[in-house]
Parts: sequence; C-alpha cells; structure tokens
Amino acid sequence: MPKIISSTEMSVSEARWITLKKIKYTDQEGKERLWECAERKTRKSTGVDAVAVFAILRSKTNAFPTSTVVIEQYRPPIGKYVIELPAGLIDEGETAEQAAIRELHEETGYEAGEILQVSPVIVSDPGMTNANMQLVVVSVLFDDKLETPEPKLDPGEYIVTKTVELSKLSIALEEYDRKGFVVDARLSHFASGLQLAQQLKI
Amino acid sequence: MPKIISSTEMSVSEARWITLKKIKYTDQEGKERLWECAERKTRKSTGVDAVAVFAILRSKTNAFPTSTVVIEQYRPPIGKYVIELPAGLIDEGETAEQAAIRELHEETGYEAGEILQVSPVIVSDPGMTNANMQLVVVSVLFDDKLETPEPKLDPGEYIVTKTVELSKLSIALEEYDRKGFVVDARLSHFASGLQLAQQLKI
Repeated sequence: MPKIISSTEMSVSEARWITLKKIKYTDQEGKERLWECAERKTRKSTGVDAVAVFAILRSKTNAFPTSTVVIEQYRPPIGKYVIELPAGLIDEGETAEQAAIRELHEETGYEAGEILQVSPVIVSDPGMTNANMQLVVVSVLFDDKLETPEPKLDPGEYIVTKTVELSKLSIALEEYDRKGFVVDARLSHFASGLQLAQQLKI
Repeated sequence: MPKIISSTEMSVSEARWITLKKIKYTDQEGKERLWECAERKTRKSTGVDAVAVFAILRSKTNAFPTSTVVIEQYRPPIGKYVIELPAGLIDEGETAEQAAIRELHEETGYEAGEILQVSPVIVSDPGMTNANMQLVVVSVLFDDKLETPEPKLDPGEYIVTKTVELSKLSIALEEYDRKGFVVDARLSHFASGLQLAQQLKI
C-alpha cells in the first residue's frame, strides 16, 4: 500500500510538470482583472493534454451483460486509490483516437474495435486549471465470453483493471466509495447520466 | 467580450488562491517517489471544495419536455466561455445540499425542490490537483410552463443561463463547441452517459 510521507509547498522554479500562472484580462465591462491558474508544462503541439476511454464490452452471443472497464490507481494528490476511466496524456504527433487505443491497450490489455464517439476538447476544472482532454467511446466486441487480458504496464506503473456491468455502474462506484476508494468526477458524471436516463426512461 | 491581456508565471508566494505542492510518497514496492500537484488554498473544514447541480426541470402538466439548466461563463484559465453545470465553492458550515440549493438559486434563479441524488466526494483531475466536489441532482417542478427566473448574481458576476431538453443535451453541447464555446468535462461526461443509455436502451 502506497503511503504519503510529506506534502510541502514547492517553488515554481523547482516544479517540472506543472506551474502557476497569473492571467490578466478585461471583463465584460472592460475592467481589468486578475485570475490565478495552474497549468501542465507537458502539453504537446496538439493542444490537448489527455484522453480518456469509455470502452463498451459486448458479446456477439450475449454471453455476458454489456460492460465497461475502469481502473484502480493510487493518486498521490488524493492520497488514495482513485477509480477512473483508462486514460493518459497524448503523445506528440498522436490523435486522440490513437492515444485512446494505445492507452486502453496498455492499461487494460483490451483492443479497441470501432470508435463510436470522439468528444470535442473539454476542460476538466476550468475555474482552477487549463487542463483539457477528449473522451473517446470505443467498442470491444467478443466472440463469446468476456476475456480479461493482461495489461501492458510500464515498470513502476500499478494499475488494476475491473470490468463492470453498464447497468450497474453507479452502484459499483458507490460501493467503491464505501470501501475507501475515491471516484473520478468525470467517470462519476458519466455514471450519473446513465443512471438518470434509466430512471427517467428517456 | 472579455479578453486575455497577459498570462505570466507567478511565484507561489504571490498566489492567493492556489499553490503548488511536492508530495513525497512510498509506492507499492516501498520505493520513495515524488509527485507534483496544485491545490486550492480555499478549502474549508468540510474538506470539499465545490458543488455542482444537475437540475431536472419538469412540468406537472407535461407542458414542456423534461429539461436541465446549464450556464455560460467566461473562464480566464481557458480564455473562452465555458458551458458548465451551475456550481460554486462550498462556504464554511454549509452542507453540499445547502450549497447546491444556494448556487442554483444565485446562478439561475431556480428554486430546488426535491434532492434526488447527492454524489460522494469525487475528484476533478486527480493526476494534477487535489480538487474535489460533490454533484447534487435536484428536481425543479413547475405547475405548467417552464419559467425563466432572474438569477441573483453578485456585481461583477456574468453568467448566462440556458435551459436544454434532457434528450437533446449532447446535441446542444456539440453545437456550443462548434460555436466556439468550450464544454466542461464533467457536464460532457454526464451528457455522454445519458446519450449512451438512449443508444443502447439500457
């Protein structure tokens, strides 16, 4: 089990991955204002930081209920294991689709089939950071039973893969929370949307 | 129209709202590692930064299709207008439900009725920040037609309220993107979940 030893303020000059920015802007009335924000220093020429993958796992024979795959990963900023969609930073020269296929394979072992949906560039916490991402929804079709391949993790990368029935995603996330995990807000919102549509039958 | 004048690196000592932290931790194999993270300095004793509200607007007479309300707000870290759920920081001594009712009223003028769902504490971008929040789903029931009350905005707060049919939320967000707005990732994931449930009929 990972453990936080210390958390100390660090100077901007010491930081390698993120920085603080002071934004001077004029508001709707032409008045000059200031806003503080954190930025990643790793953004590539694509202009997009990261990609997340919602994989729809289905059987040609209906051998298992339509499912998705989430990951459990220790996140030092939270000091706990966080439940997230498979995700990662986009490499130089990669499209969002390519990064999604690569990350899904590395983190879960699954091979993406059809790309069902690519979101526009969306922003994760626009009051505090400029962090942005794209969500890619892919299909992973199995001839029969659900397979659980080996992830292709880098040394020092510790990720646990879990498949969850789509109709039980909200319940599974609530259970994770009760067990002391923390759920990523984007995954949680996706599950709330799924659940609301089931409740309202829209 | 607001406009960015400059964006410059700022020192940690100068920043009032956010800071950088260096986290020292031991990983799964007991190896000592470092992680960089940004944190808000405004977190209250509740331990939760913010709340977002998904309001379900419904008519007792079915005079309009079930809808929700989103806001358009200029976000300096993005340099564009961002489409988000009504949201705000939780004040000292407030519960998530109280903050949700207050923010919905201030930003949209709507009075929350029944509280349908309160998410656990979820994290907005756990690889980069410790920012956390709760999502509150509320019902706003109208006797007949959809009303559009006046928001109760603070001076210098510029927020535009838009109601959207629930079954057309994804389409509305795509249109916003095409028009040069940027969509918040949490709202976008909620809409993707709604849309996927409609497509798969789960």
